[in-house]
Amino acid sequence: MSKRRRHVIAERSMMALGVAAVLLLLLSAWSPGTEAVGSRRRSLLGLLSGRPEAGAASAYSYETAYFPQILDHFVAAESRSFQQRYLVNRQWWKSGGPIFFYTGNEGDITWFCNNTGFVWDIAPRYGAMVVFAEHRYYGESLPFGNDSYKDAAHLSYLTSEQALADFAVLATALRNSIYKTPSSPLIAFGGSYGGMLAAWFRMKYPAIVQGSIAASAPIWWFQGLTPCDSAYLTITRDFSSVNPNCSDNIARSWAAIDRVAKSDLDWIRTTFKLCSPLTPTSVDSFKSWIMDTFFNLAMVDYPYPANFLAPLPAWPINKTCEALATKITEDQELLTALALSLQVYYNSTGSAACFNTSQDATSSLGERGWDFQACTEMVMPMCSEPGPHNMFLAMPWDFAAYSENCYLQFGVTPQEYLVEMEYGGKNISAISNIVFSNGHLDPWSGGGVLESISSSLVAVVIHDGAHHLDLRSATPDDPSDVLAARKLEEQHISQWIKNHSPVHE
Amino acid sequence: MSKRRRHVIAERSMMALGVAAVLLLLLSAWSPGTEAVGSRRRSLLGLLSGRPEAGAASAYSYETAYFPQILDHFVAAESRSFQQRYLVNRQWWKSGGPIFFYTGNEGDITWFCNNTGFVWDIAPRYGAMVVFAEHRYYGESLPFGNDSYKDAAHLSYLTSEQALADFAVLATALRNSIYKTPSSPLIAFGGSYGGMLAAWFRMKYPAIVQGSIAASAPIWWFQGLTPCDSAYLTITRDFSSVNPNCSDNIARSWAAIDRVAKSDLDWIRTTFKLCSPLTPTSVDSFKSWIMDTFFNLAMVDYPYPANFLAPLPAWPINKTCEALATKITEDQELLTALALSLQVYYNSTGSAACFNTSQDATSSLGERGWDFQACTEMVMPMCSEPGPHNMFLAMPWDFAAYSENCYLQFGVTPQEYLVEMEYGGKNISAISNIVFSNGHLDPWSGGGVLESISSSLVAVVIHDGAHHLDLRSATPDDPSDVLAARKLEEQHISQWIKNHSPVHE
Repeated sequence: MSKRRRHVIAERSMMALGVAAVLLLLLSAWSPGTEAVGSRRRSLLGLLSGRPEAGAASAYSYETAYFPQILDHFVAAESRSFQQRYLVNRQWWKSGGPIFFYTGNEGDITWFCNNTGFVWDIAPRYGAMVVFAEHRYYGESLPFGNDSYKDAAHLSYLTSEQALADFAVLATALRNSIYKTPSSPLIAFGGSYGGMLAAWFRMKYPAIVQGSIAASAPIWWFQGLTPCDSAYLTITRDFSSVNPNCSDNIARSWAAIDRVAKSDLDWIRTTFKLCSPLTPTSVDSFKSWIMDTFFNLAMVDYPYPANFLAPLPAWPINKTCEALATKITEDQELLTALALSLQVYYNSTGSAACFNTSQDATSSLGERGWDFQACTEMVMPMCSEPGPHNMFLAMPWDFAAYSENCYLQFGVTPQEYLVEMEYGGKNISAISNIVFSNGHLDPWSGGGVLESISSSLVAVVIHDGAHHLDLRSATPDDPSDVLAARKLEEQHISQWIKNHSPVHE
Repeated sequence: MSKRRRHVIAERSMMALGVAAVLLLLLSAWSPGTEAVGSRRRSLLGLLSGRPEAGAASAYSYETAYFPQILDHFVAAESRSFQQRYLVNRQWWKSGGPIFFYTGNEGDITWFCNNTGFVWDIAPRYGAMVVFAEHRYYGESLPFGNDSYKDAAHLSYLTSEQALADFAVLATALRNSIYKTPSSPLIAFGGSYGGMLAAWFRMKYPAIVQGSIAASAPIWWFQGLTPCDSAYLTITRDFSSVNPNCSDNIARSWAAIDRVAKSDLDWIRTTFKLCSPLTPTSVDSFKSWIMDTFFNLAMVDYPYPANFLAPLPAWPINKTCEALATKITEDQELLTALALSLQVYYNSTGSAACFNTSQDATSSLGERGWDFQACTEMVMPMCSEPGPHNMFLAMPWDFAAYSENCYLQFGVTPQEYLVEMEYGGKNISAISNIVFSNGHLDPWSGGGVLESISSSLVAVVIHDGAHHLDLRSATPDDPSDVLAARKLEEQHISQWIKNHSPVHE
């Protein structure tokens, strides 16, 4: 049924994030105290947007540098500034050669640096300088230091427009003053929200950016542009394509949880190894935590063992579905199998003692940053309507509740149409030189550009790919379609470099 | 020698600005107390950027409306807003028809509305809605009311990026909510700084703007993009093409002023009908005033009587040169002729008793706004080097002095490369759907796009045209090249409208 390869290869750690740190961050799911169903905000990268564990080893070598950025680029009398971190590698750079510029997303830039092997793999071939620029308010690039997240007044400069201006100013300085290479073409790379930024960077600053690789960038996941139930339909398809029994069992488990919860909450807690007691009021949050787990599994359903959001085996959905492979109708038997299936995501190393489903999401600095972005301009409607193609619980999109929640948390009102106005929504045919790649397995793919718009605004869909698989470093287990996608991306990169002829006075 | 037609046709007043108001504004030349030579800022429209006289009649009919604009579009937690004025006419509008949208410049929008007859002339043919949007901080669109110009903190939101965002938000509201015509193509029009904004509006918001007519828009009049002496060379060419004796006489007059000033300042005052006594320290300012007058004359050297910056006869440079048509070598004789020639600009109606060359430039609200813009992002270097092709005094471009002056006046530091970074400088080949028109006689033309960059980034030069002659209403005395320019502009407008097919969900 699925075209995906099922074989499991020897486990290899793709990056060096400590297991403890991963668990801490992954388990910081939703904040049940402040979030109403139907008004949820989720970071594109799920729950891992904090700092990597201190001392984590890096797979790649780079210098760490800091650039003085202006706080508000769009007012005239701004004297405040902050230090933006960026990572740079010039070991392959040939004078005048291209600059490969990663537009950092909602997290510590070292993490993206270490998870974007594609850029590192191809840089030597192009004699390229590699730059990873950190997004303001994440990692070390905190405009007000420890006060950066203090309140809306301090957070106010956390917008995509300001982040793009940071990138434009930094790129210009790299070219004109820091490395004195004004004619170097600049290629932007980004995945997920970083991919949205890479695309928007080209849209708004085409003289600075010669072309962009926007991987798994759901630039259309905004009100009126993409059906809000797209993600849960994609995830259900991922699971049912492995085994229809798997998705059917999951679909039945929500009611089973409710029934068992009425009589024996402790049994659920023990079976699912929860750290805290389950209460009647936390059952919804417990179910949300399971939904989120499946969301994350679909994002990282890679064909080889990887440690992107969690240390996982190859094709983790296949593994997750093993315990749910046959139709199970009895409630406790079903939930026992469900608990076992979740071990794939949460305990692949066998070291987790228990799981915390209700940790405050705001305890992670990066998560709070995205929360604020989601409460202002990054309003990405998410909903679920149970049905034959959706194994999930109902979750309506309720903008009023979402908005109220944002107001309570930050004192701000989300602008649901702002991104469409600022970045053109579906009317982007005047733009050029962007490759939009999407993985067919990725829950976010429904909000991406899945069909080419012109010969220079190109879409590529990786059938066996999850969340920006193409940006990961090459492995012997890469499916053929990700190889084809990378080849296409390189063709465009080569063309952009070749066509670059800046006009100097 | 000149191809320009010399005949003078019957005088007609093209607009209703009162003579007194014009004189007041025109004479507010430079502020000699605060400006050093070589650090000058001049508004693109010379000195007329204040409000038109109260009660001035309008040549066109429109409704006046106000739109609540957010103060800072690029921060997240902004709750402050102000009322942006716009003028709208729907008498010819057919449902779903295009929106002709003028991007207001540095002044009262009613003045631009009444001086952009081209838009009014062609709107009926296209069934177009006509909108003139006022630029923030000018006319009635004052974010902080009477405090708007109080200090740099209040002026800080006066930037081109914020103004463009105002236009984008207003245009989106006009389409989606106010007139409920989401599929209407929008064509931007602008002249001078307004033309720069029209071009940049398309660059930054191509989904909102289908194409732009950018008339006499010196988008390249920035550091490193255009030689700073271009304007004075153009003006000299304008004068010498009328009569080489005229420019030669003017070239000699500066030294003559110095010589006479040493012995008889009162003679100069009497001869030039100055309101205030001339002093040894105000002689430089007096010469600057004359240079500015010639600058303005070159901007408005129209083929018919017009009242754009002043009530003037047809081809006013021809008229100005009449008194200077023969070589004059004697100092007082030369200055007497020069004084007579200036009467063309300052006293065509014969009603001015005397001229004030040293009025404080900041007394005009609009002028102070442009001063601030010139001291922050609109750093447009201007210089003069006397030589065989330049009849003017030496005026070096001294950025350090300019910058210091800005700091003294506003406490801000000019960003001389900001516009290039933000709007691409000469590297705009990725942009489409802009017609750049320039008049060969216009001092600003040297900073404009004079050669087409692509089939959709088109330049047209009007040989017999001064400052955006093409935007003025059609007259029987229009030179053939302005007719051709308007025809080309209409061809592109028609094409942009025809090609517009917005994607709706």
